[in-house]
Amino acid sequence: MKRAVVLLSGGLDSVTALAMAREQGFECYTLSFNYGQRHHAELNAAKSLSGQNGAVAHKFIDIDLSAIGGSALTDQSIALPEQYEEAIPVTYVPARNTVFLSIALGWAEVLSAQAIFVGVNAVDYSGYPDCRPEFIAAFEQLANVATKAGVEGQKMTIHAPLMRMTKADIIQEGTRLGIDYSQTISCYQADSDGRACGKCDSCRFRQRGFKQAGLEDPTRYIK
Amino acid sequence: MKRAVVLLSGGLDSVTALAMAREQGFECYTLSFNYGQRHHAELNAAKSLSGQNGAVAHKFIDIDLSAIGGSALTDQSIALPEQYEEAIPVTYVPARNTVFLSIALGWAEVLSAQAIFVGVNAVDYSGYPDCRPEFIAAFEQLANVATKAGVEGQKMTIHAPLMRMTKADIIQEGTRLGIDYSQTISCYQADSDGRACGKCDSCRFRQRGFKQAGLEDPTRYIK
Repeated sequence: MKRAVVLLSGGLDSVTALAMAREQGFECYTLSFNYGQRHHAELNAAKSLSGQNGAVAHKFIDIDLSAIGGSALTDQSIALPEQYEEAIPVTYVPARNTVFLSIALGWAEVLSAQAIFVGVNAVDYSGYPDCRPEFIAAFEQLANVATKAGVEGQKMTIHAPLMRMTKADIIQEGTRLGIDYSQTISCYQADSDGRACGKCDSCRFRQRGFKQAGLEDPTRYIK
Repeated sequence: MKRAVVLLSGGLDSVTALAMAREQGFECYTLSFNYGQRHHAELNAAKSLSGQNGAVAHKFIDIDLSAIGGSALTDQSIALPEQYEEAIPVTYVPARNTVFLSIALGWAEVLSAQAIFVGVNAVDYSGYPDCRPEFIAAFEQLANVATKAGVEGQKMTIHAPLMRMTKADIIQEGTRLGIDYSQTISCYQADSDGRACGKCDSCRFRQRGFKQAGLEDPTRYIK
């Protein structure tokens, strides 16, 4: 059976990527990172969502990206924005997806997996450079020269199935695949029970997605 | 002043790369990883060597690559080889250099550095795929699409100044630049005092390097 490593944050996008990988016939191994982000509710969600959506194993990796700083997501002294920013926002974590995909690549090699799935999106993507198609293409090229498996001729493919989808498309596809989105956490500052702020960029993209999909928003919000 | 992040393991190669970066006029920020390797002596060495060789700051990052397994360097149940292997050896750590360079890239972006130095070598390289020129070229291409700095037109260069040098060349160059190699640890299984086994691949490449360079080997060995 073909195998994939799936990056799973506990948010709406990555669990949809997991369900799509399963539908494509992959045996899925999910990977989540404790990287110094503001809250842990999304990590708890990731673990539950992994099992609920058919992954065969789930792994956490600790890596302290707050040690290098430079982002409102890992540095409590930088305020989160509540207005949409045209430029790349302060929630950008330097090289985050590069680091996450690199570790996924290592695990994929150990598992003899042929694929990595990542839920990045270039439509409603908040302006992050490492969510663009040219980034995914460059990482795939790197992956195929970086490993023993690659040198031995085993091709690695990086799948970003949400790349061209709107948030509404993603929600409709995931709903069709049976995902319970009330379990997912997208908010940058969810409370310890996993309830969302309703104000940050990530909350606002998500709210608009449910509205445009014509579906009820199941998110639990802080009152 | 131009800035560089320099990957520093505590071994002979990476400290030579640091000295070469300094000679090229870079202000150097050194980065070391506690990644579940067999011993910590090389991390202690990295910290001392950083200051002795003119870096302005040194940072440790913890990342537990033993969680993904697949290498004799991070999995104590896999024996270290004492014979040279033609194939890629069991000391290969899946995607290690990809992970290390990714984190260096994040720090470089925070520092507004234009360069990353890494002491990889394709001559006496033990057969690791992520020590080849095509790997470095692919990572540089990735680096320039992965970050906010890259999107904004700031070019990042990955320097691998040891790539085409033999171990003897490296030792001669580092000696010219004033490095005290008795402080460096290359051994895969050094003891807690940093004394080398003299038997592993890494020790044997190093011994041969000093011999071919016509210099006395200052390494402290386990009796």
